[in-house]
Amino acid sequence: MNTPERIILGIDPGTNIMGYGVIKAVGKNPLLVSLGISDMRKEKDPYKSLQIIFRDVINLIDRYHPDELAIEAPFFGKNVQSMLKLGRAQGVAIAAALSRDIPIFEYAPRKIKMAITGQGNASKEQVADILCRILQFKPENLNLDATDGLAAALCHFYQAKPAEKGKNFTGWKDFIAQNPGRLK
Amino acid sequence: MNTPERIILGIDPGTNIMGYGVIKAVGKNPLLVSLGISDMRKEKDPYKSLQIIFRDVINLIDRYHPDELAIEAPFFGKNVQSMLKLGRAQGVAIAAALSRDIPIFEYAPRKIKMAITGQGNASKEQVADILCRILQFKPENLNLDATDGLAAALCHFYQAKPAEKGKNFTGWKDFIAQNPGRLK
Repeated sequence: MNTPERIILGIDPGTNIMGYGVIKAVGKNPLLVSLGISDMRKEKDPYKSLQIIFRDVINLIDRYHPDELAIEAPFFGKNVQSMLKLGRAQGVAIAAALSRDIPIFEYAPRKIKMAITGQGNASKEQVADILCRILQFKPENLNLDATDGLAAALCHFYQAKPAEKGKNFTGWKDFIAQNPGRLK
Repeated sequence: MNTPERIILGIDPGTNIMGYGVIKAVGKNPLLVSLGISDMRKEKDPYKSLQIIFRDVINLIDRYHPDELAIEAPFFGKNVQSMLKLGRAQGVAIAAALSRDIPIFEYAPRKIKMAITGQGNASKEQVADILCRILQFKPENLNLDATDGLAAALCHFYQAKPAEKGKNFTGWKDFIAQNPGRLK
């Protein structure tokens, strides 16, 4: 019997920078596949920024063929304006996954920090440090937005129940049918 | 010389209902092509709702081949939670247009009401009533979300400067190049 494998794409979509990380779960072992960022800070046109998010998430999906998307999703923010912008960035990333029939799982920042470090108020640096150790990569030139995306992927890996590991989702409908309670 | 024509798709994306209207502008005359809604009220899963918005906007684009998308976009709301949800709905609709290279124009609700009725605080019923007269259709079984979408399209028709009417945009890049100031 082959060891079940699955690919998890984790993203932390922001209006200025989107961080992402890709892990391959081989049985109980998570392996680093990729991490990086989409940088929209030089974009003055917010539609171009949203287009970059959409294009880059589509490209990540088509390159790594993730079985699941884990997204860091704050539910509270400073003000309604910033939350509208953040909602748009999230919506565009979600649309990219929906258009490729990738099931989506959301995690609050505090939940992700707790899953990785055991502390809900851990710093980004602490999260990155533990990710380096778990996934065995060197902390050189680390981008803390990239590691936040990677942390979402690893958090989802830890959250998923053992029975669900290696399950094959053939698409959105199957996923809904198999996971009626997972999508809230 | 042929009369320049262009198709404008107007949408009012909400988390429960998305209203839309399509007009064809033939020279100075706006003609009604279609109006309707996407109803997500029975969807308990918010991702399914977002998927419906994405699918339906894509379908509208592929069916009517609009030259431009006009979107009713409130910039203020009751609280951060509702604005995050609204931002997601907007983001998904925007992603659908971006994925088809349709230029997007946003209008605040007050701006749309002003353009249609001359009053920024007009009721939805007043907007619908004037739309019926301008676009010459009967006010039977009108859905006020659908007419809000239609109002966005007509507002955009009124806003666009005469020099821009009938201009051919071959894609997003061309549009950006031709309209550096239109996208804010």
